[in-house]
Amino acid sequence: METTTVKAFGAASKEADLDQMDIKRRSVTSTDVEIEILYCGVCHSDLHTARNDWGGTIYPTVPGHEIIGKVTQVGEEVSKYKVGDLVGVGCMVDSCRTCESCKMDLEQYCKNGFTGTYNGNEKHLDEQTFGGYSQKIVVEEHFVLKVPTNLDTAAVAPLLCAGITTWSPLRHWNVKEGSKVAVVGLGGLGHMAIKLAKGLGASVALFSRSEGKIEDAKRLGADEVIISTDSDQMKKSRGKFDLIIDTVPYAHDLNPYVSTLNINGTLVLVGYLGDLDPILNSVPMILGRKSVAGSVIGGIAETQEMLDFCGEHNIVSDIEMIKMQEINTAYERMLKSDVKYRFVIDMASLKD
Amino acid sequence: METTTVKAFGAASKEADLDQMDIKRRSVTSTDVEIEILYCGVCHSDLHTARNDWGGTIYPTVPGHEIIGKVTQVGEEVSKYKVGDLVGVGCMVDSCRTCESCKMDLEQYCKNGFTGTYNGNEKHLDEQTFGGYSQKIVVEEHFVLKVPTNLDTAAVAPLLCAGITTWSPLRHWNVKEGSKVAVVGLGGLGHMAIKLAKGLGASVALFSRSEGKIEDAKRLGADEVIISTDSDQMKKSRGKFDLIIDTVPYAHDLNPYVSTLNINGTLVLVGYLGDLDPILNSVPMILGRKSVAGSVIGGIAETQEMLDFCGEHNIVSDIEMIKMQEINTAYERMLKSDVKYRFVIDMASLKD
Ligand SMILES: [Zn+2]
Ligand SMILES: [Zn+2]
Ligand SMILES: [Zn+2]
Ligand SMILES: [Zn+2]
Repeated sequence: METTTVKAFGAASKEADLDQMDIKRRSVTSTDVEIEILYCGVCHSDLHTARNDWGGTIYPTVPGHEIIGKVTQVGEEVSKYKVGDLVGVGCMVDSCRTCESCKMDLEQYCKNGFTGTYNGNEKHLDEQTFGGYSQKIVVEEHFVLKVPTNLDTAAVAPLLCAGITTWSPLRHWNVKEGSKVAVVGLGGLGHMAIKLAKGLGASVALFSRSEGKIEDAKRLGADEVIISTDSDQMKKSRGKFDLIIDTVPYAHDLNPYVSTLNINGTLVLVGYLGDLDPILNSVPMILGRKSVAGSVIGGIAETQEMLDFCGEHNIVSDIEMIKMQEINTAYERMLKSDVKYRFVIDMASLKD
Repeated sequence: METTTVKAFGAASKEADLDQMDIKRRSVTSTDVEIEILYCGVCHSDLHTARNDWGGTIYPTVPGHEIIGKVTQVGEEVSKYKVGDLVGVGCMVDSCRTCESCKMDLEQYCKNGFTGTYNGNEKHLDEQTFGGYSQKIVVEEHFVLKVPTNLDTAAVAPLLCAGITTWSPLRHWNVKEGSKVAVVGLGGLGHMAIKLAKGLGASVALFSRSEGKIEDAKRLGADEVIISTDSDQMKKSRGKFDLIIDTVPYAHDLNPYVSTLNINGTLVLVGYLGDLDPILNSVPMILGRKSVAGSVIGGIAETQEMLDFCGEHNIVSDIEMIKMQEINTAYERMLKSDVKYRFVIDMASLKD
């Protein structure tokens, strides 16, 4: 298959800083869309993949799965997009399209495993997929999203991962006007959870360990901030919430949050993959028909729904724009949670 | 308030065997139904309360919350029942009737706590409630159930606790024709879960640690028995079930069962109150949008629905009838799981 060489920014090894490199993109097949990348959000997964924190990284690796760009070329069978369209690509660039999950528009739960935007399998070239820290990307039409043109384009980028990761559970657990939602953790995911839950008409609380986040949470739309280290405040919140979106990326005690769920309530983990340590106690779950669940990103149709919703409700991420060359210091700052609330790379900087 | 003295069987202390004693029943108020008890099922909670295993038992205590009887008297405002009707009483004899849960027919999750059929608070007499191991009981009309007359009356008794405890999650998680349900544990709860899930049109599997239960599970309606200690069989079952009803009454590893849930699947605990040890891992929950939840008995309207359903589908419990005087040896046998699958007391024996 013919390929084009494009500039990218990636890691050559586990120890290496990210640096400029050349990668190949496939020529467009009949169902492909070629996109010139304008902006790319910076997700914690980018950092963990670059540094092989989860194992399984294939080097060189080019992260980035919050991609916004302009269509530069389309295959002959592409019907949804034309050259010049503003489009997005999120965490998936392919899936089997035939399994039970894919048929239900749940590509994120593809029984055969979806193809990640980076560190997946580029089946046409038989190499790893390369993500959005690059000039161009070629993606199967089905996995390309329409981006509303009335929004701050750069600030749309984080919707493609942080946005859909919180939107999907809000929708799956039927959050609507009058729902009571709480969010645990105020970072890239948490700040989107607040905005989207609020947009859906819910009343929204943030659980935070420190009073320092009260002002910002309220600015983002939270009706209330509950200081989770204050046992009085936690006691007052018992039995209150229909849904808790827990965005915390490390092991932490879920029991105090479960107690704040109402009858039939659900706590959804979206940030932490691992052992639920400290141990979960079933008593409040049984005596209140409460659930602890998990959720990962969202399907393509659902992602489009979210983008359309954000266009109508004027919702974007709070971002800090960086140049591609600043990515390594950005990673260090992310590790200290020193970003409000998402870095977005201005991809024009890659041409420098 | 006027009272009547009736014969009962109860424990005078934590160490005492159950023995015959006299207890008082209130005279019927305007909304009360007086019931002559014909049969009473024997639940594990009876034993644990009699022996104060959970703490909080008030002595003397008279267990029994799977009660079938005939109406002998009704208050002047009672409209649903008349003398001679065949009725049942389950785990609850009262609740606040005004909270959010009660208004949604979820008395089992009453925000003010429901009144247990035994070891609750008998508000009219300001003493503990006494359960079904007795000649008569007086219960507020709302908490009395109509019992279908086409069934083996004694074998209906266990539906009032073991039946509704498994029916409620089957209904709440929308089990229907074509659903794939699995049951963990084959005892009083497990055998009802199989029958009721099957009645609802689901295909039903039993997880069992031993091959000894295969034949009986199939007789009860299970389509399949998966030996949970056989890793090949467990591997083959991955991603299979929409709902797992886990009836095991002690701490056990949920992770192998979570793996057998399909996308969007839920594992519901109905038998074990305590720490989820060994520790639960969130990875399959997040990557498959799976839930771990709990559920306790069921609401009154839902209990009536189940009884009506059992009448239509000819579903009762598998029982072993005992005399009231055999209760202490029955408890010992229950502790060894030596009963298929529920003891029911023939209350006529109390008159001997
Ligand atoms: Zn991401
Ligand atoms: Zn698929
Ligand atoms: Zn019971
Ligand atoms: Zn209530």
